[in-house]
Amino acid sequence: MTDPARIPVTLIPGDGIGPECVDAARRIIEATGVPIAWEEHVAGAEVFKAGLPSGVPQETMDSIARTRVALKGPLETPVGFGEKSANVTLRKLFETYANVRPVREMPGVVTPYSGRGIDLVVVRENVEDLYAGIEYMQTPSVAQTLKLISVKGSEKIARFAFEYARSEGRTKVACATKANIMKFSEGTMKRAFERVAPDYPEIESWHVIVDNAAHQLVKRPEQFEVLTMTNMNGDILSDLTSALIGGLGFAPSANIGNEVAIFEAVHGSAPKYAGKDVINPTAVILAGVLMLRHLGLVEEAAAIEHAIFVTLEGGILTGDVVGYDRGTPTSAYTEAIIGNLGKRTENWTIREVTPLQLPQLDPRPDYVRPASRAVVGLDVFVESPLDAAELGASLMDLTRDTRLSLKMISSRGTKVFPPTGALTETGDHFRCRFIIKENPGDLPDEDVHQVLARISREHTWMHVEKLQEFDGELGFTRDQGEN
Amino acid sequence: MTDPARIPVTLIPGDGIGPECVDAARRIIEATGVPIAWEEHVAGAEVFKAGLPSGVPQETMDSIARTRVALKGPLETPVGFGEKSANVTLRKLFETYANVRPVREMPGVVTPYSGRGIDLVVVRENVEDLYAGIEYMQTPSVAQTLKLISVKGSEKIARFAFEYARSEGRTKVACATKANIMKFSEGTMKRAFERVAPDYPEIESWHVIVDNAAHQLVKRPEQFEVLTMTNMNGDILSDLTSALIGGLGFAPSANIGNEVAIFEAVHGSAPKYAGKDVINPTAVILAGVLMLRHLGLVEEAAAIEHAIFVTLEGGILTGDVVGYDRGTPTSAYTEAIIGNLGKRTENWTIREVTPLQLPQLDPRPDYVRPASRAVVGLDVFVESPLDAAELGASLMDLTRDTRLSLKMISSRGTKVFPPTGALTETGDHFRCRFIIKENPGDLPDEDVHQVLARISREHTWMHVEKLQEFDGELGFTRDQGEN
Repeated sequence: MTDPARIPVTLIPGDGIGPECVDAARRIIEATGVPIAWEEHVAGAEVFKAGLPSGVPQETMDSIARTRVALKGPLETPVGFGEKSANVTLRKLFETYANVRPVREMPGVVTPYSGRGIDLVVVRENVEDLYAGIEYMQTPSVAQTLKLISVKGSEKIARFAFEYARSEGRTKVACATKANIMKFSEGTMKRAFERVAPDYPEIESWHVIVDNAAHQLVKRPEQFEVLTMTNMNGDILSDLTSALIGGLGFAPSANIGNEVAIFEAVHGSAPKYAGKDVINPTAVILAGVLMLRHLGLVEEAAAIEHAIFVTLEGGILTGDVVGYDRGTPTSAYTEAIIGNLGKRTENWTIREVTPLQLPQLDPRPDYVRPASRAVVGLDVFVESPLDAAELGASLMDLTRDTRLSLKMISSRGTKVFPPTGALTETGDHFRCRFIIKENPGDLPDEDVHQVLARISREHTWMHVEKLQEFDGELGFTRDQGEN
Repeated sequence: MTDPARIPVTLIPGDGIGPECVDAARRIIEATGVPIAWEEHVAGAEVFKAGLPSGVPQETMDSIARTRVALKGPLETPVGFGEKSANVTLRKLFETYANVRPVREMPGVVTPYSGRGIDLVVVRENVEDLYAGIEYMQTPSVAQTLKLISVKGSEKIARFAFEYARSEGRTKVACATKANIMKFSEGTMKRAFERVAPDYPEIESWHVIVDNAAHQLVKRPEQFEVLTMTNMNGDILSDLTSALIGGLGFAPSANIGNEVAIFEAVHGSAPKYAGKDVINPTAVILAGVLMLRHLGLVEEAAAIEHAIFVTLEGGILTGDVVGYDRGTPTSAYTEAIIGNLGKRTENWTIREVTPLQLPQLDPRPDYVRPASRAVVGLDVFVESPLDAAELGASLMDLTRDTRLSLKMISSRGTKVFPPTGALTETGDHFRCRFIIKENPGDLPDEDVHQVLARISREHTWMHVEKLQEFDGELGFTRDQGEN
């Protein structure tokens, strides 16, 4: 069935306006004459409703695992079905660790920033961070989400950002983190970026605090070319950037891994516009352009990009730009782009791209190997109706003859025992920090089990963290007010 | 020493440009004739350098605990001293749970948004969330930060946002969260907001996904009046908003708790401009305006606000606005405002405010009381050089005769055992989910200790979470790929 001369690509029309956008992109791509064999598969709302909590059927998974490339429309998670976004599931199951979100000023799309030549790319880490959605109700009234950031994942995305810049001939890469508050997780990203940067001496690089990055993106967006960051921050800042250039109708997205790449629009399924021939399909068409480049079909990619710019320069604009009462219909817009294939814009630069070199990192699981390590304590998270002083007295009593001693109790990161004289409010959730009495020491698991058993005698705990040292450096942070 | 007719206020000049800004604000406030007795105290760089890791001396703490009101300049955490921001320490130790960040278009300060009448307030939760900086190196190469969000903290900030809107006669309050990805933590904020909203029937309210909020703030900022959110998201979005109106020079901030309120600028200490008489002190002056309102001195507050607007309308602008080569010096700008006290702007509205009613919530620690609860499993986070299949086989073996059975193993939130056919990369950090065999069941701590002891025989674990059910609802999330 498959023509060996044709490149197989998985096509997922998706939900809401997805099929119209994907159809427009497919028709334009085919009009360039590229030899693609589409494998159409489903995912999203209908799959959830059929009872599959992931929203992605095995056939779709198998197709992507085979083709290694997918072009997709937005997927919905219907309320009441499934807990997880099928969009995110696809990204994570195929380890597409880099989310690439280019935005640039488009002809005829007037914004407060028009004329300033915005042309930047957010490179967002795509599989780690809060986005993993690892959550626990610690008590009936305290929720916890884990933010997990790995050294390897951070180096991979940092290196990817520089490689991406190089492949597009860009000269500046910035990294935005909240390392000043989260020295370990966000700091891991910052340090990885700073370690990788010297390998790209032709590229200017700098770090910016993420809240300042949001500020700078509004104040002077033209200063950025490539901006890389962890997943959740990248989610917010990339959506910010798409507003700078006129909205989600022009914002494509590539999810790139070393094995698989998935191309899509940033926008959602916008069900209220579905089937009305009014939506702007440019974002998915531009996702198709990114896909063609990924497949090495750079001339066809450039032809489509030129045709889009020529079309927009000709004043052919969809309803999201000029108002839905007078926008060009989706179908006519698509035809116009097809009609403009072969024409070249004179006023706007279409980038020449060279193949992207994907980072290849040490595959060993123990990516960082400390020369020395020790367990030096334990944080036990306790649910208790007691106040901090009562709880502290009880815990000291229970653990008196163990190898650990209670150092402090905190509430939401603020020390409340021993008392600081502060006005911190507490609830039913306390973090109780025990430190090993020997110095230096390394706590065996039997002693951990003993302390937990002692606490269990009188208290309810729901969460334990070992306190570790690696190469003599503390592997845990102090609390606010902990001197 | 203290004149009983005078209102005591703690004054912290702070670092870098802090003393100049604070001095400008103090002089203008004094020029209105308000009866304030300033208690000047230190915090920040010098304190860190003197060896106090919190950056806040006890005398300063004591003064704030006594006066309950502080006006402060920015505080630096010098590199190599202290782990925590002294700004954050003050907010947390005094339980100033609400961070209020108003921004509005200012006369003469030209931005791409000029003429659109931006006038909005971000109300940010100020003591919970990732900002607590509770971090652990899980393995030598995986960092973790805890995002903790409480029901009570969320209700308090949601209610505060509505009360703040009411006190300023505003008619719209939006809540921005990432509840679609973090159903527990960010979902707690969303649900609290939706529970509280009906108590304010005169105020229009809605929820917006936080990345869309960032997008909307750039695209159509004038749609927002009050926007409330959790701490980290609020950090990013409030810094975004200050760029909409011309920068940090005009962005004041109030940290308000039920006991203490601390007023400051959003900006940092900007050491390179310190002592040069060139900086824009408006943000701290506007923080002073917020402070006077908080103290009930609403006429003096309005007088200063009018004087600032009249000064700006008169074209007296600092270097951050017109360029440092031709900006009005800080001292002359301050004098101009003092000279304009008593004048009223004709073209700009100064809001009339009524006293803010601070929310009073149930003080009991067990804020949510489920009718039933059970421990139904255990997530054990293991550091291992094995692959997922080997680790899975070993864990099944070790726990075979316990009350728990291994359900799955995941890597950064994506299921990797039993295998899904996906391409997920793993490292040395695995989450191993054990579920109780009985149904329904409630796992006693002895069985938890037994399973941990079994795992300890062959593996290294560093983190344990009990899996709980409250009122029959799962208190933990599923993984990506977990059907």
